[in-house]
Amino acid sequence: MTSSIVSVVGAGHVGSAVANALVLRRACDRVVLFDRSAERAEGEAWDIADAVPLLAEMDITPSADYADLAGSEAVVITVGATPAPGQSRLDLLGSNAGIIASVMGELDRVCPEAVVILVSNPVDVLTRIAIEASTRPAHLILGSGTVLDGARLRQRLGELLRVEKDDVHIYVIGEHGDSSFPVWSSATVGAVRLEDCPLPGSTSLLQLKDELTTAIRRRGREIHERKGYTSYGVASAAARIVRAVVRDERRIFMVSVRPAEEYGVGDVALSLPSVIGRAGVERQLLLRLSDEEQQLLDHSARVLDEAYRSLSGSGTKA
Amino acid sequence: MTSSIVSVVGAGHVGSAVANALVLRRACDRVVLFDRSAERAEGEAWDIADAVPLLAEMDITPSADYADLAGSEAVVITVGATPAPGQSRLDLLGSNAGIIASVMGELDRVCPEAVVILVSNPVDVLTRIAIEASTRPAHLILGSGTVLDGARLRQRLGELLRVEKDDVHIYVIGEHGDSSFPVWSSATVGAVRLEDCPLPGSTSLLQLKDELTTAIRRRGREIHERKGYTSYGVASAAARIVRAVVRDERRIFMVSVRPAEEYGVGDVALSLPSVIGRAGVERQLLLRLSDEEQQLLDHSARVLDEAYRSLSGSGTKA
Amino acid sequence: MTSSIVSVVGAGHVGSAVANALVLRRACDRVVLFDRSAERAEGEAWDIADAVPLLAEMDITPSADYADLAGSEAVVITVGATPAPGQSRLDLLGSNAGIIASVMGELDRVCPEAVVILVSNPVDVLTRIAIEASTRPAHLILGSGTVLDGARLRQRLGELLRVEKDDVHIYVIGEHGDSSFPVWSSATVGAVRLEDCPLPGSTSLLQLKDELTTAIRRRGREIHERKGYTSYGVASAAARIVRAVVRDERRIFMVSVRPAEEYGVGDVALSLPSVIGRAGVERQLLLRLSDEEQQLLDHSARVLDEAYRSLSGSGTKA
Amino acid sequence: MTSSIVSVVGAGHVGSAVANALVLRRACDRVVLFDRSAERAEGEAWDIADAVPLLAEMDITPSADYADLAGSEAVVITVGATPAPGQSRLDLLGSNAGIIASVMGELDRVCPEAVVILVSNPVDVLTRIAIEASTRPAHLILGSGTVLDGARLRQRLGELLRVEKDDVHIYVIGEHGDSSFPVWSSATVGAVRLEDCPLPGSTSLLQLKDELTTAIRRRGREIHERKGYTSYGVASAAARIVRAVVRDERRIFMVSVRPAEEYGVGDVALSLPSVIGRAGVERQLLLRLSDEEQQLLDHSARVLDEAYRSLSGSGTKA
Repeated sequence: MTSSIVSVVGAGHVGSAVANALVLRRACDRVVLFDRSAERAEGEAWDIADAVPLLAEMDITPSADYADLAGSEAVVITVGATPAPGQSRLDLLGSNAGIIASVMGELDRVCPEAVVILVSNPVDVLTRIAIEASTRPAHLILGSGTVLDGARLRQRLGELLRVEKDDVHIYVIGEHGDSSFPVWSSATVGAVRLEDCPLPGSTSLLQLKDELTTAIRRRGREIHERKGYTSYGVASAAARIVRAVVRDERRIFMVSVRPAEEYGVGDVALSLPSVIGRAGVERQLLLRLSDEEQQLLDHSARVLDEAYRSLSGSGTKA
Repeated sequence: MTSSIVSVVGAGHVGSAVANALVLRRACDRVVLFDRSAERAEGEAWDIADAVPLLAEMDITPSADYADLAGSEAVVITVGATPAPGQSRLDLLGSNAGIIASVMGELDRVCPEAVVILVSNPVDVLTRIAIEASTRPAHLILGSGTVLDGARLRQRLGELLRVEKDDVHIYVIGEHGDSSFPVWSSATVGAVRLEDCPLPGSTSLLQLKDELTTAIRRRGREIHERKGYTSYGVASAAARIVRAVVRDERRIFMVSVRPAEEYGVGDVALSLPSVIGRAGVERQLLLRLSDEEQQLLDHSARVLDEAYRSLSGSGTKA
Repeated sequence: MTSSIVSVVGAGHVGSAVANALVLRRACDRVVLFDRSAERAEGEAWDIADAVPLLAEMDITPSADYADLAGSEAVVITVGATPAPGQSRLDLLGSNAGIIASVMGELDRVCPEAVVILVSNPVDVLTRIAIEASTRPAHLILGSGTVLDGARLRQRLGELLRVEKDDVHIYVIGEHGDSSFPVWSSATVGAVRLEDCPLPGSTSLLQLKDELTTAIRRRGREIHERKGYTSYGVASAAARIVRAVVRDERRIFMVSVRPAEEYGVGDVALSLPSVIGRAGVERQLLLRLSDEEQQLLDHSARVLDEAYRSLSGSGTKA
Repeated sequence: MTSSIVSVVGAGHVGSAVANALVLRRACDRVVLFDRSAERAEGEAWDIADAVPLLAEMDITPSADYADLAGSEAVVITVGATPAPGQSRLDLLGSNAGIIASVMGELDRVCPEAVVILVSNPVDVLTRIAIEASTRPAHLILGSGTVLDGARLRQRLGELLRVEKDDVHIYVIGEHGDSSFPVWSSATVGAVRLEDCPLPGSTSLLQLKDELTTAIRRRGREIHERKGYTSYGVASAAARIVRAVVRDERRIFMVSVRPAEEYGVGDVALSLPSVIGRAGVERQLLLRLSDEEQQLLDHSARVLDEAYRSLSGSGTKA
């Protein structure tokens, strides 16, 4: 009997959007939507369940008991406060670090072999905390990282160059936040290097890079300013990663991981190209970075490490 | 050039969930999400747009200008207040009737040939008001009605009888609300009449009918009590109807329509089996009702007519 | 690790079309295409495999060793001669009965828990032989039967009545051949009985039934006369049944089964409404037949029993 | 009313497989399967049509009258002999050149704006002949070229490197035949250049390139030797290209086109990276080739030009 179960922890805006995306895209056979509040889990799960007879063919059940998560192939963690407008992702850290450590403890108990995907922010520091708090191997834990940032960039570049986004190959790495950056040096359109592609109008490549880097970083904030939070986009990112795990796709995603030693950036978690499959992070691909890009990566790692260290004494670690 | 555009009016919980469902299920080629507030339309449309590079292949654009709705094949109206917990759908009528009449005026101007699908509540009275306010033919206007109620019932019955929901054929008709009812007399499982089907355990058919009728009516309220509104389910219902229009499916749905004369229930709008395609309500199927069922339908029509008449003097009509 | 394997026995026209349909519709995770001739299995599997990088996401592997079928959730049997133009399905019986019995022996050895779906003709007699030859329980063995006949009828009726085929509920039962018949007495369109539906033009219902019954029976022969065999249609029927098994859908299909005692037609196998899921024939639904329909069923059973008995002394049974 | 029509010319093994793939993958709304023999078109179209009620939702109709192709957005040409085992693709040229020129004449008459996709072999020379014979602009004519060769290579490389094929970016260009070659110099895995990827075991990159180049070229022949022709694979390639046209995807494919001047290879048609959308070949991407690769391309062009010139005096041209 082959039946793939995916659980979502937290039934707030993001968690319910993740569960809904899993159902509408049939990313697995069964979804368990967990929330400490049974009422909240029921409200959202039942609302989503109404879609099933009309558009989809799968099960979704609410739960307020971690035991129901047993057997999950993947668990998406969405709990924790989301940033208020103007608040940076790192500001949230204090409140969310303890929650994540405690959720990991529960998951280690009920589904020690599941791949855990963190969506809560600040996602990179929380991924690091989850890795340190959990008894499961680090390759089973990853953050949604810059998956969304890269997707936005490919979409924009594709529109500018009038080419399908799937033929635009460029990665956004580093912190999911202000220090993220596209790896322009390895960008290609099809198998043609970006610098060999004719650009539209009179834009120079330098201008283009600048504008896009800024636009991508700003997009999340623009949505925040308008709707107070983001949900649908990050839900799609999570659903896409889940599918790669459930189908053992071995597709490359920029997810938040503990970097391979070769990058020389220490013990933080940040987004780097990783092969995602049934075992979570199957392995990392080693990107060749220009000197400037390596400096940007070092900077991103420092920002994240400082945020992490600012937690000391808060009792979360230990 | 074949490119199907569907517009959603209102970017609140329901409207944004409808737009998201249209995108995740690729129900059309392009979605326009309209709201009087450009900010709100942008916040939701941009959030949803982030899904496109990851899961889907289509466009979604925000708008605060009705002119952008030109060329739509279908328009889903989601504007208007949603009921507070405990508040009945009819209580909303006063506030929403005027809004709908004015939206219909705008749509008549910019997309007079589009199929208009109302989701706002109380959906049946608002559908009647939309039909009366609009210059377009009545067959181009319909309410989402009891599509969701029937879907829930088929799902539940299928689980009880251990048969796929798509093989359970039963309709819920009348008001989308407390006076709706399943047409038990014509229910079949596959081509087997429901009364010939073995029931599980020691349940009698009468008991079963009773329990399910109550459960279905109560479900919307249970979700409301828990999350304060419903969104994902009704969004799926709207997306399902949209697909039938865009693909000219001629599939039968229980949508809110002006009843065929043969039903003898006058000028109200309520849910009855209708063939849905490119022309909206292509035609109605005439259900053979038992005497009891005809009485229930008459009752439902009376309830709706009274609600409608309670508006008199409010200036909405005329 | 959840990976659903489906095997196809025989890589001729029908077998390769079945494998191709399984791949293009992603009905499972992996397809094994078996043929006694490794060359033939390779030629077809490799040709189909070329589709994978372009349209699908799954594995297909050739095999000439029954051991490779271990772990299959379903096996589709397509081996045996196909009827030459003018030759009846029953004429094939002599040559195909022995082959099927021997294939069942191999399958009992390597995948005793798989659901076996027979497509080879004459499908009803071969299904009976497979049930008798095999050590697995009868519910794990079924023939594709009149699935295609019923699909054709729903499609035609839907076109005539201008309603989506999925809203036309009518079954074709009995022998997959000249004695099959639609169960008109229980036909509905949506929840409306067929006799209550307005017909197009001046056709009477009697005329309509007559014309359609003949057209459906004749369709297979018309294709045969033109292309010498059928492949794509029956492949879709097989792929549809496979999906119901792999996803444990519990959907109702008219497949060839050993009839429930209540039908009173003895030990033959013929098509009757059956709930198909992971356990193969989960159960049968009991159709209420008119007197005339019961006579047609009795006739169909007699035709099939005589064909079966004509095998005596051929050594196939024992 | 948006309804996309795609026609297939020729209802042999390849043409019927193309029509079947278009239906099973719903690449468009309606398929017209044309053959000079009405009988053959009917046999195949009716067989495929049986899939529709079970797996798909679209129309397929047979035709022996070119007038039925009016309104097509794309036309796939599959007519002409297929090579016997051992026969080279170029050997077929004599017999197929005249057929193609005459088909183009018919298409210019009934659907002058359709994108024409050639599948018949030798595909490159026939594409050149089609471009010269037709009155439509060259960007509306293309050959399936090395789409399949590249797909095979990505699949193999992906398996070897244990990465999803969609993350392997490498092109096979030139003649669809013995002189085709992968553009190794621009190969990347994700955004990592192939030479920076760790290889499995002790294989050297040089060995790997050699083995794969040979394996890819040989694959078509291996299938031919086993089944006498290829059909499913090339049908998927055609269906994939059709989808890019119908959905205006602007995806990059290696299809047979008249090369951009910058390649300096004259008037032949051969496979080069091209952006495919509603307008057929929207434009070509200019690949940066190593010296060795440019020599291989020159060689490929010479082979094709000689084959074309060998036709002189045959009356096909002029």
